[in-house]
Amino acid sequence: MRALTWNGETLALDPSYPTPKTAGAMALVRVRLAGICSTDLQIFRGYMGFRGVPGHELVGEVREGPAVLLGRRVVGEINFACGRCEYCGRGLGRHCAVRRVMGILGADGCFAELIAVPAANLHVVPDSVEDQEAVFVEPLAAAFEILEQVHLKPTDDVIVFGDGKLGLLCAQALNLTPARVTIIGKHQNKLAHLKHLGISTVLASKWKQRQADVVIEATGSADGLTKAIASVRPRGTLVLKSTVAQDHTLSLAPLVINEITVVGSRCGRFAPALRALAHRTVAVTPLIDKTFPLEDGVEAVGFASRRGALKVLLRP
Amino acid sequence: MRALTWNGETLALDPSYPTPKTAGAMALVRVRLAGICSTDLQIFRGYMGFRGVPGHELVGEVREGPAVLLGRRVVGEINFACGRCEYCGRGLGRHCAVRRVMGILGADGCFAELIAVPAANLHVVPDSVEDQEAVFVEPLAAAFEILEQVHLKPTDDVIVFGDGKLGLLCAQALNLTPARVTIIGKHQNKLAHLKHLGISTVLASKWKQRQADVVIEATGSADGLTKAIASVRPRGTLVLKSTVAQDHTLSLAPLVINEITVVGSRCGRFAPALRALAHRTVAVTPLIDKTFPLEDGVEAVGFASRRGALKVLLRP
Repeated sequence: MRALTWNGETLALDPSYPTPKTAGAMALVRVRLAGICSTDLQIFRGYMGFRGVPGHELVGEVREGPAVLLGRRVVGEINFACGRCEYCGRGLGRHCAVRRVMGILGADGCFAELIAVPAANLHVVPDSVEDQEAVFVEPLAAAFEILEQVHLKPTDDVIVFGDGKLGLLCAQALNLTPARVTIIGKHQNKLAHLKHLGISTVLASKWKQRQADVVIEATGSADGLTKAIASVRPRGTLVLKSTVAQDHTLSLAPLVINEITVVGSRCGRFAPALRALAHRTVAVTPLIDKTFPLEDGVEAVGFASRRGALKVLLRP
Repeated sequence: MRALTWNGETLALDPSYPTPKTAGAMALVRVRLAGICSTDLQIFRGYMGFRGVPGHELVGEVREGPAVLLGRRVVGEINFACGRCEYCGRGLGRHCAVRRVMGILGADGCFAELIAVPAANLHVVPDSVEDQEAVFVEPLAAAFEILEQVHLKPTDDVIVFGDGKLGLLCAQALNLTPARVTIIGKHQNKLAHLKHLGISTVLASKWKQRQADVVIEATGSADGLTKAIASVRPRGTLVLKSTVAQDHTLSLAPLVINEITVVGSRCGRFAPALRALAHRTVAVTPLIDKTFPLEDGVEAVGFASRRGALKVLLRP
């Protein structure tokens, strides 16, 4: 099959990559559409030391697997967990110590024609949800994860820093609560996507420093992190939503003096994200920048890496 | 009056420092005993840019103030708050934006014969609590603050890193819950103080890395911080209990990947600490290293700064 492969130095199209083996609990999924995530771009800078087929955002169609799934349109949770440990028992397979992670850790991803995914990880996509929407389920689930971890009160003032893909999705997910949500970003065209949803949008250049109860760091930059810390009220909460490869130097004293809670936040469960897409309470398709055929995957990654890019999709 | 003073460069005994003015809501307290805290030592390295009389741990006797307090033995909360803002209204005067902080920010402290403290900050010390115990109320309240911020479950495995004064108090406060508490430190003699309280004690050199639900960072060192982060289970909590002057370089990726919650923790309310002392559920006097007369305050600070020091007291 055709697949994009990363060998630690080069991303290339392999026209005859081995078809995934799907013994046991694994299903074989034909990829209909895949999304390029900032984490993929981090991987191409060394994050996680990954080698193989990258990609972890997809919508596909089951070719081999349990009868109830055959031929169904699906999305797949990306943590391939043991299913037996304490974390798995608590529904936290995304923290299973022996997990593999699709296209990130020990498992080939979805920048390919076919992918092997544990059948237990698959969710059927409702007919009302288009492929172009379903491919956002994984990052949208990561946005909803904030609400699994942090109790957002109706009186809370919430600021999202960063108008990248994840920031725009986080602002939408948090805006489904009664809290007041403001997003600060550098791109008027990106912020414009959220205005009609009742989310306050502010250009970073016009931002007047204030402190909020809950601040989401979704810029992925050291500068953004420092700004975000300074914007958390005493006893407030800072949510770290970016995984970045480099270390940060920061003064932890403000965290102690202001008794700030910092919450690291990663992947979420898919059901709430699928429900939001089915109910049209979020709008994801405006975030699509461009769709490339898989053959042009290297070019697509370059396009996705440019400053100000939004979601770039691959169609195998 | 006699007072120790810090001018940003030198700590010195001033034999004729002006007696504090106590107009309005301020009471005048004669200091019976004061404690030297690691934060004081940080101040002498530049922390908070403080100038004046340092010191914020005291037990004293009211000389001027409301009739009900006159002549009473008291301890004093260190945040001098406005009493009118939202934080003050929520009982969080320690986060009041215009607060002064005893011996730390804009208010003279207790390394002196007399100190001015808002009468509202004073708590009468029960007769059953000795001066040598009452002087620990402030740091003990800071230890209890962890339990104001973090829900410690009976099934939680808790590790305290650091067997300094604050670490030893934190371990004792947390051990009043049904959670399992282990303290890791470098000094067998310090750890010995906690053994009979049913707290597991482990020498750092013999510590076998494991992950716990809740980890308290009370070493104040960058190395300790890195170790502490690595010791938090996925979805666990790290409590930062040290204010340190220098910046830290650290990788935030583990916080995000393991969805760790980091909680900065500072001062606490005095009532729970006074109650614990009155009920003899904590043992603080074994932590006293040496008591110096105020005249020997400079020598006392030197003594408190040596490696492995425990609590050093000043008697004006």
